[in-house]
Amino acid sequence: MLPQRHSPDAATRELVVGPCRVTMQGAANPMEDAAAERRKATFSSDELAAFLHDGADKLQRREELVQLLSSQPWSDKTHRYFLTREQEYVGGLQAAVGIWKTMRGQKLSIEDGIALRSLAYFPGGLELHIGMFIPTILSQGTPEQQAKWMPLCNRLQVIGTYAQTELGHGTFVRGLQTVAVYDERAKEFVVHSPSLESTKWWPGGLGKTATHVVLMARLFVKDKDYGPHAFIVQVRDLETHQPMPGVTVGDIGPKMGFNGVDNGFLSLDHVRIPRDSMLMRYAQVTEEGQYIPPPPDNQKAAYATMVYVRATIVRDSGDFLSRAVTIATRYAAVRRQTAPKLGEPELQVLDYDNVQQTLMPLLSRAYALVFMGRSMMDMYNSFDAARARGDFAVLPELHALSSGLKALSTDIAAAGIETARRQCGGHGYMLASGLPTLFNSYVQNCTWEGDNSVMYLQTARYMVKNVLAVQLGRSVGGSAAYLAEAAKQTGAKCAVGRAEDWTNPANQLAALTAVAASLAVQATKVLARASGGQPVFEGEPWNGSSVDLIRAARAHVALYLHKNFVDCVEAAAGQRKLTAPTTAALRQLVSLHGVALLLEAAGDLLESGYATGRQAGWLREAQRSLVRGVRPNALALVDSFAYPDYQLNSALGRKDGNVYQALLDSARISPLNATQEGPAWKPVLEPLLNPQIRSRL
Amino acid sequence: MLPQRHSPDAATRELVVGPCRVTMQGAANPMEDAAAERRKATFSSDELAAFLHDGADKLQRREELVQLLSSQPWSDKTHRYFLTREQEYVGGLQAAVGIWKTMRGQKLSIEDGIALRSLAYFPGGLELHIGMFIPTILSQGTPEQQAKWMPLCNRLQVIGTYAQTELGHGTFVRGLQTVAVYDERAKEFVVHSPSLESTKWWPGGLGKTATHVVLMARLFVKDKDYGPHAFIVQVRDLETHQPMPGVTVGDIGPKMGFNGVDNGFLSLDHVRIPRDSMLMRYAQVTEEGQYIPPPPDNQKAAYATMVYVRATIVRDSGDFLSRAVTIATRYAAVRRQTAPKLGEPELQVLDYDNVQQTLMPLLSRAYALVFMGRSMMDMYNSFDAARARGDFAVLPELHALSSGLKALSTDIAAAGIETARRQCGGHGYMLASGLPTLFNSYVQNCTWEGDNSVMYLQTARYMVKNVLAVQLGRSVGGSAAYLAEAAKQTGAKCAVGRAEDWTNPANQLAALTAVAASLAVQATKVLARASGGQPVFEGEPWNGSSVDLIRAARAHVALYLHKNFVDCVEAAAGQRKLTAPTTAALRQLVSLHGVALLLEAAGDLLESGYATGRQAGWLREAQRSLVRGVRPNALALVDSFAYPDYQLNSALGRKDGNVYQALLDSARISPLNATQEGPAWKPVLEPLLNPQIRSRL
Repeated sequence: MLPQRHSPDAATRELVVGPCRVTMQGAANPMEDAAAERRKATFSSDELAAFLHDGADKLQRREELVQLLSSQPWSDKTHRYFLTREQEYVGGLQAAVGIWKTMRGQKLSIEDGIALRSLAYFPGGLELHIGMFIPTILSQGTPEQQAKWMPLCNRLQVIGTYAQTELGHGTFVRGLQTVAVYDERAKEFVVHSPSLESTKWWPGGLGKTATHVVLMARLFVKDKDYGPHAFIVQVRDLETHQPMPGVTVGDIGPKMGFNGVDNGFLSLDHVRIPRDSMLMRYAQVTEEGQYIPPPPDNQKAAYATMVYVRATIVRDSGDFLSRAVTIATRYAAVRRQTAPKLGEPELQVLDYDNVQQTLMPLLSRAYALVFMGRSMMDMYNSFDAARARGDFAVLPELHALSSGLKALSTDIAAAGIETARRQCGGHGYMLASGLPTLFNSYVQNCTWEGDNSVMYLQTARYMVKNVLAVQLGRSVGGSAAYLAEAAKQTGAKCAVGRAEDWTNPANQLAALTAVAASLAVQATKVLARASGGQPVFEGEPWNGSSVDLIRAARAHVALYLHKNFVDCVEAAAGQRKLTAPTTAALRQLVSLHGVALLLEAAGDLLESGYATGRQAGWLREAQRSLVRGVRPNALALVDSFAYPDYQLNSALGRKDGNVYQALLDSARISPLNATQEGPAWKPVLEPLLNPQIRSRL
Repeated sequence: MLPQRHSPDAATRELVVGPCRVTMQGAANPMEDAAAERRKATFSSDELAAFLHDGADKLQRREELVQLLSSQPWSDKTHRYFLTREQEYVGGLQAAVGIWKTMRGQKLSIEDGIALRSLAYFPGGLELHIGMFIPTILSQGTPEQQAKWMPLCNRLQVIGTYAQTELGHGTFVRGLQTVAVYDERAKEFVVHSPSLESTKWWPGGLGKTATHVVLMARLFVKDKDYGPHAFIVQVRDLETHQPMPGVTVGDIGPKMGFNGVDNGFLSLDHVRIPRDSMLMRYAQVTEEGQYIPPPPDNQKAAYATMVYVRATIVRDSGDFLSRAVTIATRYAAVRRQTAPKLGEPELQVLDYDNVQQTLMPLLSRAYALVFMGRSMMDMYNSFDAARARGDFAVLPELHALSSGLKALSTDIAAAGIETARRQCGGHGYMLASGLPTLFNSYVQNCTWEGDNSVMYLQTARYMVKNVLAVQLGRSVGGSAAYLAEAAKQTGAKCAVGRAEDWTNPANQLAALTAVAASLAVQATKVLARASGGQPVFEGEPWNGSSVDLIRAARAHVALYLHKNFVDCVEAAAGQRKLTAPTTAALRQLVSLHGVALLLEAAGDLLESGYATGRQAGWLREAQRSLVRGVRPNALALVDSFAYPDYQLNSALGRKDGNVYQALLDSARISPLNATQEGPAWKPVLEPLLNPQIRSRL
């Protein structure tokens, strides 16, 4: 892409010197802008980064891992945005295998491996081998089955995935159509797909990678239906990778994102598998065809798995949103638009009020989600420890929380990534900005592992039960404890007397609690009315109340999200893990988060009668002043997420601010620029444009 | 993708018969569901479709054009979702050239040509040749310039684009850095890019297609800066397609969508162009170097162009959203999820309350935008007729309206397409659903042709001026006329006494008007306070008030959007263009639209003191009952948009409901399925998985 050579003469050069001096007046210097912006911070982003990453040594280790990845061809990101679907698929596998080999070769820890996967971020055909196939064998396989399969899995001598969803059946697992029928004579199962709609659809890695699947199929023994059970089924030959007899398997085609992953389909035509293909740690089928049901706790174990998956989704929401906010904030700090007077510097986009009022609340949301993700994983881990002692007491609470938080956190992150992208203007539409890929790969979180509406409704069920318990005078605990307090204080009014009062954490929590409690009570009333008396948790009464139920669940988890943010920051301050300036910067962000949540809930605040119109109006004033307070720390706060440039892979999100050079560098290597004339010249354009060729036609 | 052959024996087949009969109980039949759904309609979708498309003959003609396209290789859509970037670029050009040749060969009308482009929908390298290069020459070229360029343009002997935006400069056109300096001795201009940031960036078709550009550059004559002017610059050789001397040009790289278009960059190194390259219909530079300024109306003409572009964006918003809603509604009608009891049919997803309450309001929004787009184009056309008589009277009003409506309609459509996509669950993530491509190609409308915040602020300026005029006792007209009425009725209260009252159009309009008027007055107050007295329309006062200003502008155009919907339906009813059942169905949709808008504005309704919490609560009840009313007409209402399957290109949006077969058919031809073993077998997987090869390593 070098210019065609030519040598303008001295007079021509001289001619434009004066005019160019004029048009270059007030020209921006993005790198200087970035540096100047950082000098405004009131706290040390190194300190906060170390706190958020559990110590400076962890950050240091991550730098080393970035170095390691930078030197490997399979983790090079220079061409990542230019790949065809096939290249993306092959590249994703090469990266996964590269990391696997590096870990074995250098004897790296699991923690390092997780960090390498996160830094390289190249989802591919092994995701479900690692994320579902191995965990299912570990949790549902007998010791013998584990002994057989785990070495093969760990050495990548088999690659597995998890096949549950069918083309026509999602959420309703009990209604799967695929059957596994026990043949007592042969001591085998016959697995079979009876219809087009029963084709397994979506399993990651199934398309072209996996050799085996955990198949969820309805188990029949002696013509009796025992419901869905898990079976290991080989789908491809190990020597040729051709499908096994009776197996139809392939890739489902391209998606909005995540195209390195070969999500697949699978149809089985009377395929025989040995009896020990069934994972029998809990339920069993004996040789003679006797069905031994699982112990009752098995159901709880299934819930525990769901809670774990949802907890990781909550954690990822903070991860993705914080990346998007990092990119958008850094670019807004160096991008300039519109000068007050011609010849003066254009204004920094971050100084536009509507940009600040969008990006700073979004930054507070990213922090809230990051802290929520950490707490969620902590909660899961302490539950897991209790479970090992047979203690499942917190499971219902954890299930209700993780469901609603899965929905809320993915709603916030998906909308937030797109908001961040739009704040970058036209350039945010380029893949080189990093934001489209972030959005397109993230957004599936809103629909997978349970559609968000279904998730909210699970939390709503828990809320309604707690409201009913309070009404019956029973004690309620956990995250719903505030319902008991609220029931005693019906008709409580907001005490805010001026805009500044809204920055007070106690006032914020009181208002968020009042909203959540009133919506929970109201949803319970709506459900009771629809049920014609005592609330019914299914059928038309439940269905017809879902808008109110979802609204109540959302308010509950929003309150929880904010409360957790407050608690985490105050705990760190109390334990002196942060210096005073850093604590102050975080408290400002917490306060902004509370106000932003309340602004969103203004209609509810007012409808419940808790606040007046005047008080609600003060929320905007409060937000304005909080945003102005956070503004000088904008870059330091995103720097504290500590994403290496390598990880963000964003021309606009570069830490040094050299964004325009990065965009141009990225464009120059675009495959369409491989030749000057481009791929359409010969077949399409030359016959039209070349006068000689055209005249011959 | 045929299964590996094998022949299960009779006993094996027999074994699974009973179990499959069990799991197939209650199995769905999507095509029957679609047909049954259509029988529920209370009106004729054929009638409404004909009305929306200006007559049944127009629809018939469109069918013929679909037939024409179906038989051409360049308009085949079977593989559209599988293309690499390069294939998409070449394909987009082939389609455009194919349509051009067909139009010439068959002597088709411009109207047919527009329909063909819309049906084939394959944006490519000619978009800006048609949409900007030609129109700019027609509007700004002298008769001689038009005589020279237009035949070349129409015969595709040159291909042009429009180069204004620079890498580091967008909205602030006066601040462009590219210069065009007049050399009096040579009677030529020297055009030059003085910096990295002055590289032209984004012009569609510039990357690899265009031979010429309209270049916007700062004109200097005798060292005096005359601001941005338009010049025609040749950038590529017609015989070789190589860049001209001093020209660096290329593709900017892949984007979130629209990748058939080769958006490009351009840098000029002291390039000499003849004097008559400047488009001189208005401003002129004489041979001797005398600058003749344009007549004052020139500025108005520039506004008129902006209005036109924004009007087309408003029209497109209805087009895109109605496609997305068509797909989501049709799929929701045939998709089933969760049976009340095992063995019974699962419920139609459209019967879930939260799905209905999402999709039916979205459907009403699509209709509102479709009618708004039609009205907007009508308004533009009558302005254009007046302009020909030198009458620019309605321009300020039209500019204010089209700005805010551009922002509101693109906000609604972008969010709505994504909402529709998520309502399709996991399958909406597949490109075969049609929705990801719709979203990814649409969403740039929110940031191009003026960022939406900037657009709202232009409407806000108009609103504040009208509020001030009312306060000074002056009369105000047009879309802001209600401000005068509202000023007389401060403290007016909502008259709604029960949920049903909210379905009354008069009550809806009164409430939407009250909200818009109160927010306009409030924003004016905020601006006045920030200005320290009389409102200042720039600088820090304006900037610091932008959140309130945007809020007011949004409420104003939302009111206008709804009022237009009401007026269009009532006009059609009054002129007896629709039968009573169709009018009734549309009125229900209008009513739902009003309630949905008010629900969104509930916080504002309450904060202003216009409505009470109880009244606001009734909005949800009203919405619920309206949604139930619209529900039976859901399919008929989307059928009335009359998108042929060819145009939607969606497995989930097929009119016949045969969605699962369509998904599977689409997957089978995915390029990743070209071989059974896939592209990663040889390079990555075989060395791991094949025991023999592995043992050799």
